[in-house]
Amino acid sequence: MPVNHAQAVLNGERLALTRALTQIENNTAEGLEILEALFPHTGKAHLIGVTGAPGTGKSTLVNQLALAYRQPADGTIPPRVAIVAVDPTSPFTGGAILGDRVRMQDLTGDPGIFIRSMASRGSLGGLAAATAGLVQVFDAAGFEIIIIETVGAGQAEVDIARLAHSTIVVEAPGLGDEIQTIKAGILEIADILVVNKSDKPGAENTLRALRNMLSMAHPEGKHINHHGQLMEIDSETDQTGNGWIPAVLPTVATSGEGIPDLVSSLNAHIDFLKSSDLWQLREEKRLKNQLETLLGTALRSRWEKSISPDIYQAALAKVIKRELSPWRAVEELIQGAGL
Amino acid sequence: MPVNHAQAVLNGERLALTRALTQIENNTAEGLEILEALFPHTGKAHLIGVTGAPGTGKSTLVNQLALAYRQPADGTIPPRVAIVAVDPTSPFTGGAILGDRVRMQDLTGDPGIFIRSMASRGSLGGLAAATAGLVQVFDAAGFEIIIIETVGAGQAEVDIARLAHSTIVVEAPGLGDEIQTIKAGILEIADILVVNKSDKPGAENTLRALRNMLSMAHPEGKHINHHGQLMEIDSETDQTGNGWIPAVLPTVATSGEGIPDLVSSLNAHIDFLKSSDLWQLREEKRLKNQLETLLGTALRSRWEKSISPDIYQAALAKVIKRELSPWRAVEELIQGAGL
Repeated sequence: MPVNHAQAVLNGERLALTRALTQIENNTAEGLEILEALFPHTGKAHLIGVTGAPGTGKSTLVNQLALAYRQPADGTIPPRVAIVAVDPTSPFTGGAILGDRVRMQDLTGDPGIFIRSMASRGSLGGLAAATAGLVQVFDAAGFEIIIIETVGAGQAEVDIARLAHSTIVVEAPGLGDEIQTIKAGILEIADILVVNKSDKPGAENTLRALRNMLSMAHPEGKHINHHGQLMEIDSETDQTGNGWIPAVLPTVATSGEGIPDLVSSLNAHIDFLKSSDLWQLREEKRLKNQLETLLGTALRSRWEKSISPDIYQAALAKVIKRELSPWRAVEELIQGAGL
Repeated sequence: MPVNHAQAVLNGERLALTRALTQIENNTAEGLEILEALFPHTGKAHLIGVTGAPGTGKSTLVNQLALAYRQPADGTIPPRVAIVAVDPTSPFTGGAILGDRVRMQDLTGDPGIFIRSMASRGSLGGLAAATAGLVQVFDAAGFEIIIIETVGAGQAEVDIARLAHSTIVVEAPGLGDEIQTIKAGILEIADILVVNKSDKPGAENTLRALRNMLSMAHPEGKHINHHGQLMEIDSETDQTGNGWIPAVLPTVATSGEGIPDLVSSLNAHIDFLKSSDLWQLREEKRLKNQLETLLGTALRSRWEKSISPDIYQAALAKVIKRELSPWRAVEELIQGAGL
C-alpha cells in the first residue's frame, strides 16, 4: 500500500518514515511509488550541505548545528531537523555505521532530530540519486531543516552539494602550504566557509588565507564580515555571479563556540536566496540535476535488459585481449542492443 | 590523418604526442581515431595512482618519485615517466594550471618526463574517461611509468585509482582524531600508504595508527615491514583477498627522504602482481571500468540526439512546478525518445 504508506509519512509517523527511507535506499518499486506520492509535498525545507576533509570535526559541527536549531534563542517553536550523512569515501565497507554510533550519544532522545547514514554502495550516480530521494522524503515529512553531510571535497561532494540550498565548507587549521590549490573549486560551491577547531594553533592564518582568497574573488571584499550578513555589492564584479559573498566563520564545535553565528549566517543566506529569484534558480538546478542522474541510471538499466550478457562478455573479452578498442566495443554494444 | 598522427606518437615525436593529448582531452573525432589506432600498442606501462588530501605534500612527492625513477641507483637505463595530474575538486576554474607552474620548476629540462594536468570540466564519468584516454596515449608512446595524481579521497579518486596497477595513498601527520573514519575506504584502494612530512610532530602516531589498522585488517600483520617486500601470508585470512599487505612508508618529499624505499616498494608491488594472475586481473578490471564509463556516456549522448530538446525542457518545467516527479519524467523521456 504505497499510497497509505506515503500518507503515514505525511502524517509524521516515525515508523513509516524509517520504512520509507529503507525502501528508497534499496531502490525498490515500492520506494519509487512512495517517492512519487510524496513528491508534490516537497519544496519546503531548507537543505544545508556540509562538506570538508576528514579531520575537520565536521560531524561534531553538524551535531551542534542540529542542537542549535532545536534550541532557538528567541523561544520560537524549533524546526524539525533531519541529518543525512553520506560517506562516498567508503565504497565497500560500513564507514557510516561508526558515524552513527558517535552521533547517537549526542542527539538521542530528541524526537525532533532524525539521523540517517548512507555509505556508497555502487556508482556515484546511484548515491546522489538515493540521497536526493531521502532528502525528498524528509522534506515531505515536514522536516524544515535537512542537513546533508558528506566527506571530502571531490566530485562526489560537489554533486551532493548541488542538492543543497546552502553549502557549508568546513576547514581546520594546519592543512598547510597547499591551501591555494584546494580553493579554486571550493570557492564556487561554498556559501559559508567555517574554520572549525579555531582554538588550535594556525587558526588565524587559515582564516586570513580564506578571507584573502575571497577578497581576490570579490574585489569589493572590504564588505566581508564574519556574520554572513547580506552585502550590498556590485554584481558585475562578483565572480560567483549571485551577489552573495561567502562568510568565513571561526567555530569550536566541541564547545559550541561560533555555532549561533553559523545559524545566523544560514538564516541570512536563506533570506538572501528568497529575497531574490535565486531560491527558485537553485530549486530548478537541484531538480534538473536529479533528473539527469536518474536519466543516466535508467538508460543504463534499459540497455542492460535489451542485450544478452554473453554479447557484453564477448566484447569485454576482446577488449581485454586488445583485439577491440573500448570505443569500438561501445559502438558495437549499442548497435547489438537494437535499442 | 589520424593514422599518421598515431604513427608519429608511436615514433616518440613529442609534438605529435602533445597534439594527440589535446584532441583526446577535447573528445574530438580525430582524438578517438588516434586512440583507436594506439590501443593495440597499450598494456606495457606500470600505472601508478597517487591520491591523498590537500596539504599532504602529494605533488612534491610525485615530483620526487618521477626524479627517482629517472636516476636509478643501479645505473640502468631509466624509464620514461609521464605524470597525469587530475583535479576533480576544481570543476569550473583552472586549478590545474597553478599545479603545472609549480611542477615545471622542478622537472623542466628532462625530456624523459612529460607532465599533463587536467581539471574536471563536466561529469565525473567524462573526467575518468578522458584520464583513461591520456594514460593509453602515454602507454602506447612508450612511457614505462605513468603516474596518475588526484586530489582527495572521494568517489572521483576511487574511480581514478581503478585505472592504476598500484595505488599510493598519501597521508600527513596531524589530521587528528577522525583518522579511523577515513580509513575504511582507503584500506581497500591503497597498495602502499605513505606518511609524508614524517619529520613533523605526530608522524609517529600517524604511522602507528595506520599500522595498527592494517594489523587488524590482516591478522597475520606481524609480517608487515616498511619496505613493501612480498609477504608470505595465508590468503584465506587476508581480507583484501589478493595476498598483498600494504606497506606503510614514512617520507619527507621536500628533502627526498624515503623516496628510494617508495620506489623499491612500487617495484616489489609490480613484481608481486606479475608473479601471480593479479596483473591480468587488474588489467581486466581497468578495461572493464573504462568500457562501462564509455558506455554510460554513449547511451546518454545517443538519447540526447533522439529527442527534441523541447520535450526535455517541457518535462523539466513540469518537474520544477512539481506537477511531475523526476522518476515519472524519466520514464516519459525515455519513451518519448522512441529509442
